[in-house]
Amino acid sequence: MTGNKAVAYVGKGSVEVQDIDYPTFKLTDGPGVNQANVGRECHHGVILKNVATNICGSDQHMVRGRTTAPEGLILGHEITGEVVEVGRDVEFIKQGDLVSVPFNIACGRCRNCKEGKTGICLNVNPDRPGSAYGYVDMGGWVGGQAEYVMVPYADWNLLKFPDKEQAMEKILDLAMLSDIFPTGFHGCVSAGVTVGSTVYVAGAGPVGLAAAASAQLLGAAVVIVGDLNGDRLAQARSFGCETVDVSQGDPKDQLEQILGVPEVDCGVDAVGFEARGHGREAGTEKPATVLNSLMDVTRAGGALGIPGLYVTGDPGAADEAARVGSLSIRIGLGWAKSHEFTTGQCPVMRYHRRLMMAILNDRVQIAKAVNATPIPLSEAPRGYHEFDVGAARKYVLDPHNMLHTSS
Amino acid sequence: MTGNKAVAYVGKGSVEVQDIDYPTFKLTDGPGVNQANVGRECHHGVILKNVATNICGSDQHMVRGRTTAPEGLILGHEITGEVVEVGRDVEFIKQGDLVSVPFNIACGRCRNCKEGKTGICLNVNPDRPGSAYGYVDMGGWVGGQAEYVMVPYADWNLLKFPDKEQAMEKILDLAMLSDIFPTGFHGCVSAGVTVGSTVYVAGAGPVGLAAAASAQLLGAAVVIVGDLNGDRLAQARSFGCETVDVSQGDPKDQLEQILGVPEVDCGVDAVGFEARGHGREAGTEKPATVLNSLMDVTRAGGALGIPGLYVTGDPGAADEAARVGSLSIRIGLGWAKSHEFTTGQCPVMRYHRRLMMAILNDRVQIAKAVNATPIPLSEAPRGYHEFDVGAARKYVLDPHNMLHTSS
Amino acid sequence: MTGNKAVAYVGKGSVEVQDIDYPTFKLTDGPGVNQANVGRECHHGVILKNVATNICGSDQHMVRGRTTAPEGLILGHEITGEVVEVGRDVEFIKQGDLVSVPFNIACGRCRNCKEGKTGICLNVNPDRPGSAYGYVDMGGWVGGQAEYVMVPYADWNLLKFPDKEQAMEKILDLAMLSDIFPTGFHGCVSAGVTVGSTVYVAGAGPVGLAAAASAQLLGAAVVIVGDLNGDRLAQARSFGCETVDVSQGDPKDQLEQILGVPEVDCGVDAVGFEARGHGREAGTEKPATVLNSLMDVTRAGGALGIPGLYVTGDPGAADEAARVGSLSIRIGLGWAKSHEFTTGQCPVMRYHRRLMMAILNDRVQIAKAVNATPIPLSEAPRGYHEFDVGAARKYVLDPHNMLHTSS
Amino acid sequence: MTGNKAVAYVGKGSVEVQDIDYPTFKLTDGPGVNQANVGRECHHGVILKNVATNICGSDQHMVRGRTTAPEGLILGHEITGEVVEVGRDVEFIKQGDLVSVPFNIACGRCRNCKEGKTGICLNVNPDRPGSAYGYVDMGGWVGGQAEYVMVPYADWNLLKFPDKEQAMEKILDLAMLSDIFPTGFHGCVSAGVTVGSTVYVAGAGPVGLAAAASAQLLGAAVVIVGDLNGDRLAQARSFGCETVDVSQGDPKDQLEQILGVPEVDCGVDAVGFEARGHGREAGTEKPATVLNSLMDVTRAGGALGIPGLYVTGDPGAADEAARVGSLSIRIGLGWAKSHEFTTGQCPVMRYHRRLMMAILNDRVQIAKAVNATPIPLSEAPRGYHEFDVGAARKYVLDPHNMLHTSS
Repeated sequence: MTGNKAVAYVGKGSVEVQDIDYPTFKLTDGPGVNQANVGRECHHGVILKNVATNICGSDQHMVRGRTTAPEGLILGHEITGEVVEVGRDVEFIKQGDLVSVPFNIACGRCRNCKEGKTGICLNVNPDRPGSAYGYVDMGGWVGGQAEYVMVPYADWNLLKFPDKEQAMEKILDLAMLSDIFPTGFHGCVSAGVTVGSTVYVAGAGPVGLAAAASAQLLGAAVVIVGDLNGDRLAQARSFGCETVDVSQGDPKDQLEQILGVPEVDCGVDAVGFEARGHGREAGTEKPATVLNSLMDVTRAGGALGIPGLYVTGDPGAADEAARVGSLSIRIGLGWAKSHEFTTGQCPVMRYHRRLMMAILNDRVQIAKAVNATPIPLSEAPRGYHEFDVGAARKYVLDPHNMLHTSS
Repeated sequence: MTGNKAVAYVGKGSVEVQDIDYPTFKLTDGPGVNQANVGRECHHGVILKNVATNICGSDQHMVRGRTTAPEGLILGHEITGEVVEVGRDVEFIKQGDLVSVPFNIACGRCRNCKEGKTGICLNVNPDRPGSAYGYVDMGGWVGGQAEYVMVPYADWNLLKFPDKEQAMEKILDLAMLSDIFPTGFHGCVSAGVTVGSTVYVAGAGPVGLAAAASAQLLGAAVVIVGDLNGDRLAQARSFGCETVDVSQGDPKDQLEQILGVPEVDCGVDAVGFEARGHGREAGTEKPATVLNSLMDVTRAGGALGIPGLYVTGDPGAADEAARVGSLSIRIGLGWAKSHEFTTGQCPVMRYHRRLMMAILNDRVQIAKAVNATPIPLSEAPRGYHEFDVGAARKYVLDPHNMLHTSS
Repeated sequence: MTGNKAVAYVGKGSVEVQDIDYPTFKLTDGPGVNQANVGRECHHGVILKNVATNICGSDQHMVRGRTTAPEGLILGHEITGEVVEVGRDVEFIKQGDLVSVPFNIACGRCRNCKEGKTGICLNVNPDRPGSAYGYVDMGGWVGGQAEYVMVPYADWNLLKFPDKEQAMEKILDLAMLSDIFPTGFHGCVSAGVTVGSTVYVAGAGPVGLAAAASAQLLGAAVVIVGDLNGDRLAQARSFGCETVDVSQGDPKDQLEQILGVPEVDCGVDAVGFEARGHGREAGTEKPATVLNSLMDVTRAGGALGIPGLYVTGDPGAADEAARVGSLSIRIGLGWAKSHEFTTGQCPVMRYHRRLMMAILNDRVQIAKAVNATPIPLSEAPRGYHEFDVGAARKYVLDPHNMLHTSS
Repeated sequence: MTGNKAVAYVGKGSVEVQDIDYPTFKLTDGPGVNQANVGRECHHGVILKNVATNICGSDQHMVRGRTTAPEGLILGHEITGEVVEVGRDVEFIKQGDLVSVPFNIACGRCRNCKEGKTGICLNVNPDRPGSAYGYVDMGGWVGGQAEYVMVPYADWNLLKFPDKEQAMEKILDLAMLSDIFPTGFHGCVSAGVTVGSTVYVAGAGPVGLAAAASAQLLGAAVVIVGDLNGDRLAQARSFGCETVDVSQGDPKDQLEQILGVPEVDCGVDAVGFEARGHGREAGTEKPATVLNSLMDVTRAGGALGIPGLYVTGDPGAADEAARVGSLSIRIGLGWAKSHEFTTGQCPVMRYHRRLMMAILNDRVQIAKAVNATPIPLSEAPRGYHEFDVGAARKYVLDPHNMLHTSS
């Protein structure tokens, strides 16, 4: 039995690397574990030696204290690893396989999974449909910012890379398959992005950049990214996007300068509820700003993809309505324009195999687009901090020193 | 030259029958006519002798003074008639044809029309995409609650009934093709209603009842209609729907009694912004109640079809945000459930031919479902009044005494 | 350990009821079992006590000697039963559950299953994608025309009926969920049948009748069924279909008499490769007649759903090309009309839950439509014979005398 | 009144440039004109000064004598031009506009056009649904390999380039929007090509190369093109495709060498009925070779897009069945693999605006991919000849010396 170092949330603004138990095929009690899941047997699972495990913007919501995450919660839902142990009931995944783990945990046996809606699996989270590793109110599956992690329903969930050696050459790209690449792609698909579209992506964090790269891969004619953060906008420009600095005012005017018309075909919200205002209100949190702005700039008949997270409870919100996830939305405007809106977790399994093929055949450079930056697991606290203050980077933790980390 | 009697809005709460000009193939100035449309030539149009022209719930918004509709506006966008004169450029529609007029006016030549999005045609309304006859801010096309009306772009817009005599036998059913039947159907289609679905339709007015009949036609397993109005709920039960009386409390509990589970696959909002509260708040206008309730009762992975009207400006709203069409919406709840939302005018042309086929082959009794009630054109004020106070009827004006009106 | 009576193919034209082994969770060698499957462990499986197990037209292909099915093959792939034993790895299906078994065997873990294409699962048949119980060249899964059968990957494959008692009241309807109802429905869906469509279903055997009932459920305006067999046509008329007697000549003329136009929106091939000619050629096998006729009668822009079976090898075919499944098809005609063609096994899991909901809520009477006729298992040879000579019945074997068989 | 030089078919193997009448807004009698169209008024049309008008592979079918095209037929259906005269009923297209003409002529007023199926318009060809300029059995619309041409229903059919000057800089790319780019794109879309797909395009003529470029634009992971012609294969490799030389044997083996598996996700038939055999049969016409080969190499669950032309009558065919368009197709193989097949003319309007956006924003270099080669109109006979003997070029006729022809 080996040890297992992992990243734990230890209070508002803080994470630390702790020694935790090596995973088994049974859920045990601990911080954030739903009691109904304690003792759950997972012979359908595998244990992974984590090769790459990324810090996600949605982890930041917890670390900033914007959720009810308990202290001691082990974080991490973006996991890529090598199978080191196989549960009794696993039939097709084998020891030694190098795999990508969808951040959504799914059983592959409920109505929603059978319909391909793996982001809202009915069998893994006693609280509500849908789950994820290392996340508050998601059932209590131990997070994967660790040396080892247990992944349930392995035959269903895991995407095996066909050639391990080839995969290790592109491992920083493939590490994005567990969450942000499919999530950005889903935002684009649900916004109707297709060959020839004009697209506005609100937000130049990793999901926004992944959405922008996805829009290009889908054949969009023009991809425009908006943000307040100059470094992130520069990152967007580095792979051919146009950019809008929303601190300078209404995106509509800047869009018109770029496109000749003040509207786009497709809008993607890669920000979510922690949005800040535009122009003179740029310093203030305005949770519905992005949605309302997207309705304004998206053409009549267009659609909005909303991968950015909106929550049902936000203890840190500015007003009572927002504390229960109710925001003042210009629905009248959207209605007048016949807009369609798609919300929710990306069902990663719908896309990850296809995106893997695009990566392996050099059709997309997603690691470069999001500026994937490997750091040792031990430096996770630094990664969290730098990301929180706006570094234009996607931090990839490297628990076993397999990523040629150059820090 | 014959005369032309028509229904005019003459101030908050009032309509009257006036003598107006017989239509020509040119738009002229008048109440509500956009100046950019004055003088517009319509050689592509036809003049109809109106056989049936219905009062719509959306007309009520204007008559209740909830819009900026000017006095003197000729009302009416639900038109069925016989072609009595054909413009120079009309090629396929012929004099004598009996036709249904989609309430959306569409040019058939812009990007949106070519994409089938005729509810947001770019060429007919100088103010914004989308138009309708006899409606405020829709460009100024003269309404059709009249003896005669001009319909532009006739080859594109009109649906010809294949056999005139057969059509007159089902004329009350066919009269619903101009708006409420396709509108209810669109609500269901965009809510994902299909064979085997459970469906909750909020609102038992004519659009809600049409949505319920549409859900049945689409093969839904269970169709449940909710309203505050007992007569309208009785009407819904008359053709096999289950009902929920929202004055008695949260629809969720009543749904559980009917279905065994407190949720449905599909939610349809057939109410819109003039919604009232549920349970103890039933007397108060609560403009986001229906949307928020639908998110609550629709299963994770479900969709919401929103044919009910939400406006960009509501001078009668209770608060400042609502006056510009911004409502407090529980987007966090919808996001957690991966809901999809489809808004906007129904593009009638997408559905009317198919629904006509269903009517002509006795697959649906839409007139019976909505309790279509013909009355003389001269009694329009009575129809408006009775409808406003909640009659469980769909009033069909009969300008030429062709509907065997039995009033 | 109890015994297990089952229906075996014992040579061209003959079946008999034999005593076979009670099922276990391991595949063993036997007639038609692929060697690569011998010894395969199925801890993910359950053992069913079969409540209803139907004779299928595709069984007839084997019994007529039109395939290479070995003597001793246990037949039957339309299975409805009660779970009497649960494999070690089954998590959600429980002993006592009453379930429908999709005829396609699927693993729920391969690329195709994850895409919802369970008719071509990659992991259950070593010969080619796709499998079924009791069928030649399908891997060797023991057939279900028996008292007991083992069903693998039970959590994935099985549809549990929510209320056992209610289900037993509609058991003859629910028994059609394992194959012919979804198969007929899939034929309609892939032919584009929707509200208002005109539909021609070629073939009035059980799949054709199920397709016709499906078309009605989908809201078709007119459903027309063609066949040579007068009894089967009468059965089609019994639930509101129009009919065409193809022995009287080209269906096109009869369609024109019914519809006023000589074409339909949607064509469904519910016959397959054992088709016979039309009109004067009605006595002769003409394997491409149905496909070619459907292209002739389906409108330009329409689609053809082809649930009828076409095989890769037909030892009984009239010419060399047909013996390897190559037929003379009027592709030039289809191309001129921009037709779309969808072939293959119906992926039952895509539809069975929705169709169950329609049955349980009285939206469709499928057992009545196909004239479901229960008979004791011991009378299977009679059932095969009567079906082969054209009885307008769907025979349902009743291994445990639970269907109130009245023979 | 100016003159009008045009390319006429003058007998098997021959075309010549003739002086014909300058177009008017009325169809007149002439070679190939359907009598029902003689005298047809087209006030909805415009007259174009043709800037670029391409020779198409489907023109070759006529010139090779494989059709019943009459001598004197004016050829040409790939037209890009400047509007020089506007019919009385045209409202939005203006004199001076630079436009692309879809090769399908469509009325914009029939059921099929309203459904977006402009390749099978019901109102332009008295013989059957669907029409094109300068083509046998298509109603008799005068071809556009000419200095001037009349285009009917201009507001509906034409795609206006937003900036004339910018458009002239990319005119060779934009000239591909009238037919082969959308046609190749449609082949890919209907074959299910999407991000991450592996694609096999049969045929490296202009449509095949356009399909290959389209597959790349759609995000395909690997695009493989097969042909017998080494120059055309080299052209495919020039923009990043893999290639298969079908003269060297079964494409399946070569696909396995490229991909590691002997199958692709998607198959595109860019050859049609004049296909030749593979391997040792490479010299012989085998009209069903491509379709049968595509079923062999396309994975179970894949789809076939069939933009390659199959005809209803082929006087030059080798056998009686093929002379009426009936080919020996391995439908049993396709059925076993659950293949879907989409045939027919590409409805150009469904795609041309989006592909224009991709061109104008430098997302695709279609002229380079197909090796677009401008030549003077007077050299059309040379272009026809060189193309017929297999030049890896797409010839673009330049009637007004506006393309900087360098021949």
